Amino acid sequence: MIELDFAKEGGLIPAVAQDYETGDVLMLAYINEESWNETLKSGRATYWSRSRKKLWKKGESSGNTQVVKEILVDCDNDAVVFKIEQIGGAACHLGYRSCFFTRLKKDGSTETVGERVFNPDDVYGK
Amino acid sequence: MIELDFAKEGGLIPAVAQDYETGDVLMLAYINEESWNETLKSGRATYWSRSRKKLWKKGESSGNTQVVKEILVDCDNDAVVFKIEQIGGAACHLGYRSCFFTRLKKDGSTETVGERVFNPDDVYGK
Repeated sequence: MIELDFAKEGGLIPAVAQDYETGDVLMLAYINEESWNETLKSGRATYWSRSRKKLWKKGESSGNTQVVKEILVDCDNDAVVFKIEQIGGAACHLGYRSCFFTRLKKDGSTETVGERVFNPDDVYGK
Repeated sequence: MIELDFAKEGGLIPAVAQDYETGDVLMLAYINEESWNETLKSGRATYWSRSRKKLWKKGESSGNTQVVKEILVDCDNDAVVFKIEQIGGAACHLGYRSCFFTRLKKDGSTETVGERVFNPDDVYGK
Protein backbone atom coordinates (compact mmCIF):
# COMPACT_ATOMS: atom_id res chain seq x y z
CA MET A 1 0.00 0.00 0.00
CA ILE A 2 1.28 3.41 -0.90
CA GLU A 3 2.17 5.70 2.00
CA LEU A 4 1.36 9.36 1.52
CA ASP A 5 3.71 11.89 3.10
CA PHE A 6 1.33 13.46 5.59
CA ALA A 7 4.20 14.55 7.85
CA LYS A 8 5.53 17.23 5.51
CA GLU A 9 2.85 19.90 5.97
CA GLY A 10 1.32 19.33 9.36
CA GLY A 11 -0.72 16.33 8.33
CA LEU A 12 -2.39 17.77 5.25
CA ILE A 13 -1.94 16.98 1.56
CA PRO A 14 -3.63 18.81 -1.31
CA ALA A 15 -6.14 16.81 -3.33
CA VAL A 16 -7.20 17.92 -6.79
CA ALA A 17 -10.71 16.83 -7.74
CA GLN A 18 -10.85 16.39 -11.49
CA ASP A 19 -13.88 15.47 -13.58
CA TYR A 20 -13.15 11.91 -14.75
CA GLU A 21 -14.81 12.52 -18.11
CA THR A 22 -13.98 16.10 -19.12
CA GLY A 23 -10.69 16.51 -17.24
CA ASP A 24 -11.87 19.82 -15.78
CA VAL A 25 -10.34 20.65 -12.41
CA LEU A 26 -13.37 21.05 -10.15
CA MET A 27 -11.82 21.95 -6.81
CA LEU A 28 -8.75 21.73 -4.65
CA ALA A 29 -9.09 20.67 -1.05
CA TYR A 30 -6.98 18.96 1.59
CA ILE A 31 -6.87 15.49 3.04
CA ASN A 32 -5.42 14.18 6.26
CA GLU A 33 -4.80 10.53 6.97
CA GLU A 34 -8.31 10.01 8.33
CA SER A 35 -9.97 11.48 5.24
CA TRP A 36 -7.65 9.52 2.97
CA ASN A 37 -8.63 6.26 4.66
CA GLU A 38 -12.31 7.24 4.55
CA THR A 39 -12.02 8.03 0.83
CA LEU A 40 -10.49 4.62 0.13
CA LYS A 41 -13.05 2.83 2.26
CA SER A 42 -16.17 4.63 1.05
CA GLY A 43 -15.22 5.38 -2.57
CA ARG A 44 -16.46 8.94 -1.98
CA ALA A 45 -14.08 11.90 -1.83
CA THR A 46 -13.61 12.88 1.79
CA TYR A 47 -11.53 15.88 2.75
CA TRP A 48 -10.40 17.73 5.85
CA SER A 49 -12.08 21.07 6.31
CA ARG A 50 -9.44 23.55 7.42
CA SER A 51 -12.05 26.14 8.40
CA ARG A 52 -14.31 23.77 10.35
CA LYS A 53 -11.41 21.59 11.51
CA LYS A 54 -13.31 18.39 10.89
CA LEU A 55 -13.72 15.53 8.48
CA TRP A 56 -15.56 16.75 5.41
CA LYS A 57 -17.56 14.14 3.58
CA LYS A 58 -18.03 16.14 0.41
CA GLY A 59 -21.71 16.44 -0.43
CA GLU A 60 -22.95 15.53 3.04
CA SER A 61 -25.02 18.74 3.20
CA SER A 62 -25.69 19.39 -0.47
CA GLY A 63 -26.02 15.83 -1.72
CA ASN A 64 -23.33 16.63 -4.27
CA THR A 65 -21.03 13.75 -3.41
CA GLN A 66 -18.00 12.80 -5.48
CA VAL A 67 -17.68 9.20 -6.63
CA VAL A 68 -13.98 8.41 -6.90
CA LYS A 69 -13.23 6.69 -10.20
CA GLU A 70 -9.45 6.81 -10.11
CA ILE A 71 -6.71 8.00 -7.77
CA LEU A 72 -3.33 9.30 -8.93
CA VAL A 73 -0.43 10.04 -6.59
CA ASP A 74 2.46 12.33 -7.44
CA CYS A 75 6.16 11.56 -7.49
CA ASP A 76 6.73 12.87 -3.96
CA ASN A 77 3.68 11.18 -2.44
CA ASP A 78 2.55 14.59 -1.22
CA ALA A 79 -0.29 15.42 -3.61
CA VAL A 80 -3.13 13.40 -5.10
CA VAL A 81 -5.64 13.66 -7.93
CA PHE A 82 -9.10 12.26 -7.41
CA LYS A 83 -10.75 11.60 -10.75
CA ILE A 84 -14.37 11.82 -9.81
CA GLU A 85 -17.94 11.74 -10.96
CA GLN A 86 -19.58 14.85 -9.53
CA ILE A 87 -23.08 13.95 -8.37
CA GLY A 88 -25.49 16.87 -8.78
CA GLY A 89 -23.27 18.46 -11.38
CA ALA A 90 -21.63 21.08 -9.16
CA ALA A 91 -18.58 20.87 -6.91
CA CYS A 92 -18.53 24.50 -5.80
CA HIS A 93 -20.52 25.66 -2.80
CA LEU A 94 -21.44 28.75 -4.83
CA GLY A 95 -23.34 26.56 -7.27
CA TYR A 96 -20.81 26.41 -10.08
CA ARG A 97 -19.65 23.16 -11.61
CA SER A 98 -16.05 24.02 -10.76
CA CYS A 99 -14.63 26.24 -8.02
CA PHE A 100 -12.26 27.51 -10.71
CA PHE A 101 -14.88 29.60 -12.50
CA THR A 102 -12.84 32.80 -12.51
CA ARG A 103 -10.47 33.39 -15.41
CA LEU A 104 -7.77 36.01 -15.16
CA LYS A 105 -7.51 37.94 -18.38
CA LYS A 106 -4.32 39.41 -19.84
CA ASP A 107 -5.37 42.94 -18.87
CA GLY A 108 -5.67 41.91 -15.23
CA SER A 109 -9.47 41.85 -15.17
CA THR A 110 -11.44 38.67 -14.53
CA GLU A 111 -14.36 36.93 -16.16
CA THR A 112 -16.64 34.13 -15.06
CA VAL A 113 -16.19 31.06 -17.24
CA GLY A 114 -18.64 28.66 -15.63
CA GLU A 115 -22.37 28.56 -15.32
CA ARG A 116 -24.30 28.20 -12.11
CA VAL A 117 -25.77 24.72 -11.78
CA PHE A 118 -27.70 25.48 -8.60
CA ASN A 119 -28.58 28.40 -6.39
CA PRO A 120 -26.70 27.97 -3.09
CA ASP A 121 -29.64 29.47 -1.17
CA ASP A 122 -31.83 26.60 -2.32
CA VAL A 123 -29.32 23.96 -1.29
CA TYR A 124 -27.89 25.16 2.00
CA GLY A 125 -30.79 27.37 3.15
CA LYS A 126 -30.62 31.10 3.66
CA MET B 1 -6.65 43.04 -10.33
CA ILE B 2 -7.55 39.92 -8.41
CA GLU B 3 -5.94 39.55 -4.99
CA LEU B 4 -4.94 36.03 -4.02
CA ASP B 5 -5.21 35.07 -0.35
CA PHE B 6 -1.56 34.48 0.40
CA ALA B 7 -2.07 35.19 4.10
CA LYS B 8 -4.04 32.02 4.84
CA GLU B 9 -1.23 29.45 4.71
CA GLY B 10 1.97 31.27 5.52
CA GLY B 11 2.27 32.95 2.15
CA LEU B 12 1.84 29.91 -0.07
CA ILE B 13 -0.98 28.90 -2.40
CA PRO B 14 -1.18 25.62 -4.32
CA ALA B 15 -0.97 25.89 -8.10
CA VAL B 16 -2.16 23.06 -10.33
CA ALA B 17 -0.34 22.86 -13.65
CA GLN B 18 -2.69 21.40 -16.23
CA ASP B 19 -1.92 20.61 -19.86
CA TYR B 20 -3.88 23.22 -21.81
CA GLU B 21 -4.64 20.76 -24.60
CA THR B 22 -5.23 17.38 -22.97
CA GLY B 23 -6.42 18.56 -19.54
CA ASP B 24 -3.99 16.20 -17.81
CA VAL B 25 -2.83 17.42 -14.40
CA LEU B 26 0.95 17.59 -14.76
CA MET B 27 2.06 18.72 -11.32
CA LEU B 28 1.09 20.53 -8.16
CA ALA B 29 3.42 23.13 -6.73
CA TYR B 30 3.19 26.27 -4.60
CA ILE B 31 3.37 29.95 -5.34
CA ASN B 32 4.06 32.90 -3.11
CA GLU B 33 3.35 36.49 -4.06
CA GLU B 34 6.74 36.94 -5.71
CA SER B 35 6.32 33.86 -7.92
CA TRP B 36 2.76 34.87 -8.77
CA ASN B 37 3.95 38.28 -9.94
CA GLU B 38 6.82 36.72 -11.87
CA THR B 39 4.40 34.29 -13.56
CA LEU B 40 2.16 37.15 -14.65
CA LYS B 41 5.09 39.23 -15.85
CA SER B 42 7.00 36.51 -17.69
CA GLY B 43 4.15 34.31 -18.91
CA ARG B 44 6.13 31.31 -17.63
CA ALA B 45 5.00 29.31 -14.60
CA THR B 46 7.13 30.31 -11.64
CA TYR B 47 6.75 28.59 -8.28
CA TRP B 48 8.21 28.72 -4.81
CA SER B 49 10.41 25.76 -3.98
CA ARG B 50 9.61 24.69 -0.45
CA SER B 51 12.68 22.45 -0.25
CA ARG B 52 15.15 24.98 -1.64
CA LYS B 53 13.30 27.97 -0.17
CA LYS B 54 13.73 30.03 -3.30
CA LEU B 55 11.95 31.24 -6.38
CA TRP B 56 11.63 28.36 -8.81
CA LYS B 57 11.46 29.33 -12.44
CA LYS B 58 10.19 25.98 -13.69
CA GLY B 59 12.49 24.64 -16.39
CA GLU B 60 15.43 26.86 -15.53
CA SER B 61 17.70 23.82 -15.18
CA SER B 62 16.01 21.35 -17.51
CA GLY B 63 14.79 23.73 -20.20
CA ASN B 64 11.31 22.32 -19.65
CA THR B 65 9.56 25.63 -19.06
CA GLN B 66 5.79 26.02 -18.86
CA VAL B 67 4.15 28.61 -21.09
CA VAL B 68 1.05 29.85 -19.28
CA LYS B 69 -1.94 29.86 -21.64
CA GLU B 70 -4.68 30.53 -19.13
CA ILE B 71 -5.03 31.17 -15.40
CA LEU B 72 -8.04 30.13 -13.34
CA VAL B 73 -8.60 31.18 -9.72
CA ASP B 74 -10.88 29.37 -7.31
CA CYS B 75 -13.83 30.72 -5.36
CA ASP B 76 -11.77 31.41 -2.22
CA ASN B 77 -8.84 33.00 -4.07
CA ASP B 78 -6.57 30.46 -2.40
CA ALA B 79 -5.80 28.04 -5.24
CA VAL B 80 -4.99 28.50 -8.91
CA VAL B 81 -4.86 26.45 -12.08
CA PHE B 82 -2.20 27.25 -14.64
CA LYS B 83 -3.20 25.88 -18.03
CA ILE B 84 0.16 25.46 -19.65
CA GLU B 85 2.09 24.29 -22.64
CA GLN B 86 4.81 22.02 -21.32
CA ILE B 87 8.00 22.68 -23.27
CA GLY B 88 10.11 19.53 -23.64
CA GLY B 89 7.11 17.32 -23.03
CA ALA B 90 7.76 16.48 -19.38
CA ALA B 91 6.86 18.32 -16.18
CA CYS B 92 8.23 15.77 -13.72
CA HIS B 93 11.86 15.84 -12.63
CA LEU B 94 11.84 12.05 -12.94
CA GLY B 95 11.31 12.39 -16.68
CA TYR B 96 7.59 11.63 -16.84
CA ARG B 97 5.12 13.88 -18.60
CA SER B 98 3.13 14.24 -15.39
CA CYS B 99 4.21 13.94 -11.77
CA PHE B 100 0.98 12.01 -11.28
CA PHE B 101 2.22 8.87 -13.02
CA THR B 102 1.28 6.51 -10.18
CA ARG B 103 -2.22 5.07 -10.16
CA LEU B 104 -3.58 3.46 -7.03
CA LYS B 105 -5.44 0.29 -7.89
CA LYS B 106 -8.46 -1.06 -6.04
CA ASP B 107 -6.41 -3.82 -4.42
CA GLY B 108 -4.06 -1.22 -2.90
CA SER B 109 -1.19 -1.87 -5.28
CA THR B 110 0.09 0.79 -7.68
CA GLU B 111 0.91 0.93 -11.35
CA THR B 112 2.79 3.42 -13.50
CA VAL B 113 0.49 5.07 -16.01
CA GLY B 114 2.88 7.45 -17.72
CA GLU B 115 5.86 6.97 -19.97
CA ARG B 116 9.27 8.46 -19.43
CA VAL B 117 9.91 11.32 -21.84
CA PHE B 118 13.51 11.82 -20.77
CA ASN B 119 16.14 10.22 -18.59
CA PRO B 120 16.74 12.53 -15.62
CA ASP B 121 20.44 11.65 -15.60
CA ASP B 122 20.81 13.11 -19.08
CA VAL B 123 19.08 16.35 -18.13
CA TYR B 124 20.33 17.16 -14.66
CA GLY B 125 23.65 15.29 -14.74
CA LYS B 126 24.54 12.41 -12.48
